[in-house]
Amino acid sequence: MSGTGFKLLATDGTARRGQVSTAHGTFETPAFMPVGTAATVKAMTPEWVAETGAECILGNTYHLMLRPGAERVANLGGLHEFMNWHGPILTDSGGFQVMSLNDLRTLTEEGVRFRSHIDGSYHDLSPESSMDIQRLLDADITMAFDECTPFPCEKDEAAKSMALSMRWAKRSKDAFTERDGYGLFGIVQGSVYQDLRQESITALTDIGFDGYAVGGLAVGEGQETMLEVLSYTLPELPDDRPRYLMGVGKPDDLVYAVARGIDMFDCVLPTRSGRTNQAFTRRGTVNMRNARHKDDKRPIDPDCTCYTCTTYSRAYVHHLVMAKEILGMMLLTRHNLHYYQELMAGMRDAITSGTFDVFQAAFEKDYFGEDIEPL
Amino acid sequence: MSGTGFKLLATDGTARRGQVSTAHGTFETPAFMPVGTAATVKAMTPEWVAETGAECILGNTYHLMLRPGAERVANLGGLHEFMNWHGPILTDSGGFQVMSLNDLRTLTEEGVRFRSHIDGSYHDLSPESSMDIQRLLDADITMAFDECTPFPCEKDEAAKSMALSMRWAKRSKDAFTERDGYGLFGIVQGSVYQDLRQESITALTDIGFDGYAVGGLAVGEGQETMLEVLSYTLPELPDDRPRYLMGVGKPDDLVYAVARGIDMFDCVLPTRSGRTNQAFTRRGTVNMRNARHKDDKRPIDPDCTCYTCTTYSRAYVHHLVMAKEILGMMLLTRHNLHYYQELMAGMRDAITSGTFDVFQAAFEKDYFGEDIEPL
Repeated sequence: MSGTGFKLLATDGTARRGQVSTAHGTFETPAFMPVGTAATVKAMTPEWVAETGAECILGNTYHLMLRPGAERVANLGGLHEFMNWHGPILTDSGGFQVMSLNDLRTLTEEGVRFRSHIDGSYHDLSPESSMDIQRLLDADITMAFDECTPFPCEKDEAAKSMALSMRWAKRSKDAFTERDGYGLFGIVQGSVYQDLRQESITALTDIGFDGYAVGGLAVGEGQETMLEVLSYTLPELPDDRPRYLMGVGKPDDLVYAVARGIDMFDCVLPTRSGRTNQAFTRRGTVNMRNARHKDDKRPIDPDCTCYTCTTYSRAYVHHLVMAKEILGMMLLTRHNLHYYQELMAGMRDAITSGTFDVFQAAFEKDYFGEDIEPL
Repeated sequence: MSGTGFKLLATDGTARRGQVSTAHGTFETPAFMPVGTAATVKAMTPEWVAETGAECILGNTYHLMLRPGAERVANLGGLHEFMNWHGPILTDSGGFQVMSLNDLRTLTEEGVRFRSHIDGSYHDLSPESSMDIQRLLDADITMAFDECTPFPCEKDEAAKSMALSMRWAKRSKDAFTERDGYGLFGIVQGSVYQDLRQESITALTDIGFDGYAVGGLAVGEGQETMLEVLSYTLPELPDDRPRYLMGVGKPDDLVYAVARGIDMFDCVLPTRSGRTNQAFTRRGTVNMRNARHKDDKRPIDPDCTCYTCTTYSRAYVHHLVMAKEILGMMLLTRHNLHYYQELMAGMRDAITSGTFDVFQAAFEKDYFGEDIEPL
């Protein structure tokens, strides 16, 4: 078969338990994909990433096209070989990052022209070049090139932006090289306007994709609005394709989005937090710079089975972050990604056993409970 | 038995092959000790340090007394437990670092008073407090508190400084708590003056130590002078105790010092270089930022068996260092420490088989050979 595959294994209300199959293996959904921006999940080895339970990681087209360059990665055997990650890889289209990270850009119907922040050289991103770059990187899942509509956005602007993204979606599909195990995902736009979201879904499903992302969220609209958009968008998407919420999110975002039917996530939060002294735990985040950890022999979370928690005291991790030691970032990132993957595994089990509501209630009690002492 | 033990297993000319036994196990000599300044060998896990072949590491009293504090480390189970390194640990006395890193200090017969660079608080280091701090850290090998004579130094100044260090050596010995498997090393001073070095050795051996360090070297005197000092100093030291050359050095420094009878080394060079884009190889150092690596699929050293070289191309390591990724520092540090430990293992084997001259010639041909292409 051409494209990636998706098996829906169980449902519990609107929550879904599935499996995505790609040229580099399968991954279980709901899945959280750690972000490997520049061909590395920061401060982690690929073996450590796999050990946390992650099965699919994300690479950033914008960063990789500028350095080391897509042709170079292809000549070096593709992204999997280059970075020694032999499981599935999803790459974004570069569209979001060129708009959010680069001020020196011109947007036309054709695409985006911009200057490299590294050496000032000119580059073009278009549906065609984005497909070409993601193919050179050897991404298992390629994202259609789109414009991420800013928030807030008046309806006529959102409509224009969505329409452009839909024309680009068609051009992405036309430029995409079909191969077994390699999939192309379309991205639903339309901001917070239900009729625009519906119009976008119709356009995308007419073209036909291996999966559908909900775009234009996690850009400042807040959790309530995000969940509202998901609530009316997800039921309109085909059941037999994975649904991906890009750039999300906090642990509670993941739980509420899974409840509404999202299958895939990516976010820098667990890795970035690992480099900024924040530990995720089932009782909320813990700032490891806090002096209360100084003499504390307990691990960050006594119930956590990760390398960091089974090996080191929070006093040691506190010492490392105070001394700005690289090992502190390594240990916290490893713990945070383990926490995220355990959360996903818990949700997958709960959906299979039809107890997602119990899982969610227990998560909320632990994570937000006022009678619960923070770790 | 009280103190650390030393078995001399073989000699080859003046080169020595031995084994040091401590409360936390043995280590083979000649040994290179990676530096774990702030209770971490930077950018490494303790498992990785052990995997390189390192058996004993060094901790810095000056850094650890200021953060997290020696009492705190003791309450947390000692340095081994705190940092999860269960092999032997040697700590320096704090004397060298307080003189070289701290401008806010006053030196008296009693010791040194200085202000913390972290919070401005006042601290005293003396033979007695240094012994106390190293005991609280639970160092297997404690270094006597001394003054590292600066270089260059007029003879009368060097004599005064050495005499002070010898009085401090006696006070160190008196203050040291004798325990099985815990040793105290004295430090020979006397700058580049042979009679002062002899005088220092006589004073130290009269007191009696578990091992002897040659101090006041690697402070700008150059390799030739350093080796000359070793050549007349080492034959005067007791054969049945390990000899330690502090803060050394480059691979060729190690080879030439082992040839003259040194048993132990420590140096930040392999770890610091790992964070500044330098790879050590049998054909000299390689700057991984050099553009010639961009498309090179070979490992840093095709003959190296370390994780980095068996897993990644130099193109990938080059990419990581250009992108300033933490993984680049992790991979280079791991490679460099592996290189240093392989070098030590090679010297140990050569001494056992009586072929150190052959080993040294082969090392020089590879490392300095003009007809050899750099890696």
